[in-house]
Amino acid sequence: MNCSRFFLLSFSVCLIVSHPQAQTVELKHKDIAAKLLETGLRNCEAFSMLKELCEKAPHRLSGSEGAATAVELTKKMMTERGFDKVHLESIMVPHWMRGEEECWIIPEASIMPQTMRLQRLEVCALGGSIATLDDGIQAEVVEVKSLQEAKALGEKAKGKIVFYNRPFDATKLNTFEAYGGAVDQRSRGAIEAAKVGAVAVLVRSMTGIIDDKPHTGQMNYADTVKKIPAAAISTLHANQLSELLKKQKLVKVHLKLTPQTLPDVESANVVGEITGSEKPNEVIVVGGHLDCWDKGQGAHDDGAGCMQAIEALNLLKKIGVKPKRTIRAVMFMNEENGNRGGKAYPVAPERKGEAHIAAFESDAGGHAPRGFNVKGDSTLLQKVLRWKPLFGMYDAGNIQIGYGGVDISPLLDTGVAGFGLLPENHRYFDYHHSDNDTIDKVNPRELELGAIVEAMLCYLISEEGL
Amino acid sequence: MNCSRFFLLSFSVCLIVSHPQAQTVELKHKDIAAKLLETGLRNCEAFSMLKELCEKAPHRLSGSEGAATAVELTKKMMTERGFDKVHLESIMVPHWMRGEEECWIIPEASIMPQTMRLQRLEVCALGGSIATLDDGIQAEVVEVKSLQEAKALGEKAKGKIVFYNRPFDATKLNTFEAYGGAVDQRSRGAIEAAKVGAVAVLVRSMTGIIDDKPHTGQMNYADTVKKIPAAAISTLHANQLSELLKKQKLVKVHLKLTPQTLPDVESANVVGEITGSEKPNEVIVVGGHLDCWDKGQGAHDDGAGCMQAIEALNLLKKIGVKPKRTIRAVMFMNEENGNRGGKAYPVAPERKGEAHIAAFESDAGGHAPRGFNVKGDSTLLQKVLRWKPLFGMYDAGNIQIGYGGVDISPLLDTGVAGFGLLPENHRYFDYHHSDNDTIDKVNPRELELGAIVEAMLCYLISEEGL
Repeated sequence: MNCSRFFLLSFSVCLIVSHPQAQTVELKHKDIAAKLLETGLRNCEAFSMLKELCEKAPHRLSGSEGAATAVELTKKMMTERGFDKVHLESIMVPHWMRGEEECWIIPEASIMPQTMRLQRLEVCALGGSIATLDDGIQAEVVEVKSLQEAKALGEKAKGKIVFYNRPFDATKLNTFEAYGGAVDQRSRGAIEAAKVGAVAVLVRSMTGIIDDKPHTGQMNYADTVKKIPAAAISTLHANQLSELLKKQKLVKVHLKLTPQTLPDVESANVVGEITGSEKPNEVIVVGGHLDCWDKGQGAHDDGAGCMQAIEALNLLKKIGVKPKRTIRAVMFMNEENGNRGGKAYPVAPERKGEAHIAAFESDAGGHAPRGFNVKGDSTLLQKVLRWKPLFGMYDAGNIQIGYGGVDISPLLDTGVAGFGLLPENHRYFDYHHSDNDTIDKVNPRELELGAIVEAMLCYLISEEGL
Repeated sequence: MNCSRFFLLSFSVCLIVSHPQAQTVELKHKDIAAKLLETGLRNCEAFSMLKELCEKAPHRLSGSEGAATAVELTKKMMTERGFDKVHLESIMVPHWMRGEEECWIIPEASIMPQTMRLQRLEVCALGGSIATLDDGIQAEVVEVKSLQEAKALGEKAKGKIVFYNRPFDATKLNTFEAYGGAVDQRSRGAIEAAKVGAVAVLVRSMTGIIDDKPHTGQMNYADTVKKIPAAAISTLHANQLSELLKKQKLVKVHLKLTPQTLPDVESANVVGEITGSEKPNEVIVVGGHLDCWDKGQGAHDDGAGCMQAIEALNLLKKIGVKPKRTIRAVMFMNEENGNRGGKAYPVAPERKGEAHIAAFESDAGGHAPRGFNVKGDSTLLQKVLRWKPLFGMYDAGNIQIGYGGVDISPLLDTGVAGFGLLPENHRYFDYHHSDNDTIDKVNPRELELGAIVEAMLCYLISEEGL
C-alpha cells in the first residue's frame, strides 16, 4: 500500500457502536489506559529485558546454571526498577540434564534408496526420559498414529521402536487446540509402547510446521510400567521416516540418548511488588515461568511472560500509579517439568496474613494480545466485561471464559480469580520447546502490548476489586 | 507452557455473551463459515501461490518485466482453478526504473572521527525521483524534522542536501497512523526543499525499526517547482548521520542516483470470477494490487492481497458455493505509482451492463486478520454488523468504519460499498517497500485467514445483498 490515506477511525467510534457499556467506564481509567499505552510503546522495555534474559540465560531448565542466573538477573531487574520487597522464595526443583543424542537410519544396502543411506534423523530426548544403553539401541521402527494403535500392536511391538506420527490438525483455528489434540503421544506414548514390549519411542515433534528442529517437552512414566527411552523427532524427518516405511518393509534405526536425572537442586520463585497503599495485604499476582527447556532461548516460552510481568509493574510505577492493593510480579520456577514453584507459592510462609484477589499469567507467547481468558464463573466474567472498552483501546478486547495458566493453577484452586493472556497464537508452536524459540522471533511492540494489558487489568482490579 | 490444559472455550460461548445478534445468523451461513475455515487452513493455498509469485516475479514495479510475468502468472492461476471469464483489461502504465545508486560521507580528515571515514550510507532513490548528475552530487547536509523546518531554512538550504529525519511516532497503537504522521517528508519533501534552493533530499525510511535497509516509496514533484533528486536513507544510517551532525559542524555527503523515467508501457488488470447464478450482472470485487516496488519481493505489499483474492474465490469453489451474484477477483496494476489500474477499472468497456455491489481490498499485509473496515455510512455498518458473530469464528470480528483501499477508491467514488481487510499491523512497516518484504516474513495460516474472511464476506453479500 502506497499512500497515507489508510487510517482507522479512532477506536472510540467502534466501541460506542458495538459496546454500550463503553459509557460506564470512568474517565480516569481511560486516562490511565492511554498513559500505559503511550509509555509502554515509547520504549518497549519488556523487549530489552527479554533480550538480556535470552542472552545471559538462554537455557533455564530447572536445576541448571542458566536457571540460577535467571533467578539472580530477574531479582536485579526488579530491584533496579524500585520494586518493593524484592526477594526469593526458596524451593527444591528436579534436575534433569540432556546429554549427547543421536539417531540415524541403519542402511540396508539391498533395499534402501541410495539417498537415504546413513541419514541422520534430528531427535532430542523428551524431558524426563531415561537414557538408552551406552551404545544406543538398534531396532526396527513401527509407525502408529495414536496411543490406541500402539496398544493394538500387541506382540508386534516387541523389541521395536514405536514411532508416534500423528500430526497437528491444521484445520483448528487455535493452535493450542491442535497441540492439545496431539500431545498425548508425547505425554503417554512411552507408557503405552512399553506395555506392549517396545524398547523406545520416537514422537513426532509438537508443531504444525515442517522443519528439521526437534521440539522437546515433558513425557511421563507410570510406576507400574517399564521405563523406556523417549525422543522427539523433527517433523521433516518424521515425514521422511514415514515415507521410507511405506517404501520398504523393514526400517531399522540407531537411537542413542544419554540424559540423567540428578538429585533435586535448590532454586526459587522470584518475587517483587508495588505494595498497596490502602489494602497492602490484598494481593494481585502477575507472572510467568522463569524456567524453560534447554533448546533455543525460551524467548516466547516463557521469557516473554516473565518480562511482561516485570514490565507491567514498571509501567504502573512510571506513570505514577500508587495502587490501593498490592500488585506483585512472580517469576515461577519449574513450570516445564514439575510446577514446584506454582505449587509452593500458595503455601509459602510468606503468604501468612495475605489474601489473594486475582492472578494473571502470560504463558502463551509474546505475540500481539487479543484479550485474556477469565478463569471463573459467569458472574466474574460479567464484572470484568464492564472494562472491555478499555482493552479495546489496545485492540485486545476478547474477554472470555478460559484457562489461566499452569503456574497459577494451584493458587486458583484456593478460590482466587484467574486470568490468562491470549496472544495471537498462529506462530507459537513453530518455536515452542525448540531451537527456534529465540529473541529474533519476538516483536518488541507485540510483546509490550501484553505487558500493557496486564498492567491495566491489575490496576483495575486493584482500584475496583472483583 | 507445558501441558495441554490451555484451551479456549469455543467461540460460541463468548459470542453469545457479548453479541446477542449471534442468534439471528442463519445456520447455513455458520456451516459455510466453518467449511471455509477448515478447507482454507488444511492447505493454506494462498501461501503456496504467494511463494510462486515471489519467486517468479519478485520485482513487479509497473512497466517492468516482473510485472509482465506477474500478469501472466496470475491469469494462469485463475485459469487453472477454473474461474470464469479470466481475462486481461489493458492499461498504459508509467515506467520508472532504478539505476545504480550510492551515498557516502565525504571525509573531512581534521574533524571526522576515524570510524566514520568513507562510511557508506544505505540509500535508494524514491519512486519517481530524477537522477543526480553523472558524477553524483557532493553537498553539505542540513537536518530537519518537518516540512515546516525545511521551509524555515530559507537561504541556509541553498546548495545543500536537506535531510528529513522525523521518525515514526512509536506510541501510536496503529502503525499506519505512525506512517501517516511521517510520510509527508517522503511525498512532499523534495518540493519544499527545492523551494528554498536545496539540491537534493535524503528522507528517513518510513519504518519504526532500526536497520540498514532503505525503504522506497512514491515521491512527488510540483509543476512549478524545480525537480531535485530524492532518496530514502536507512534508519540506522539516518541515526548515524544525525549523530555526526551533532558532533561536527559540517558534514558533506556524496549522493549518486541514476533512475530513469521511460515511456509508458502497456500492462493490464487481471480479472477472473465466479459468475453469479441468479444475478450475474451484480458484481462483488475482491482484490489487491499486483505491482510492487523493486525491493524485496512484494510479499506483504501486496502479493498477499492478490493471492488472498484468488484464494477467496478458490475456497468458495472448493466448498461448492454457487453464489447468486458474481464474485470477481481483480489484480489491480500500478497502485504504487499512479493507480492507473484502479482508475481504469470502473470505466473499462467490460463494465458495460454491470452493477457493482461491493469491493473488498486487502492491502495492509498478510498478517492475521483482526476484522475489516467498512467504507460507508452507519446504515451500511449496521447491516454488516449483523454478520459479526460469523467473523468472530475467525477471531476477526473487528468491524468498523474506515478506509477501503487505494485500488478500489475510484470504484467506491461511484457509490459502491467498500471494505478493507484489517490485519495485525505491528510488523508491516518493518518490511514495507524494502528488501525485508520477502516470503519468509509471511505465515501461511495468517495469510490464509485473510482469504477466508474475504471469501465469507463476499459470499454473504452475494447471498443477502447490502
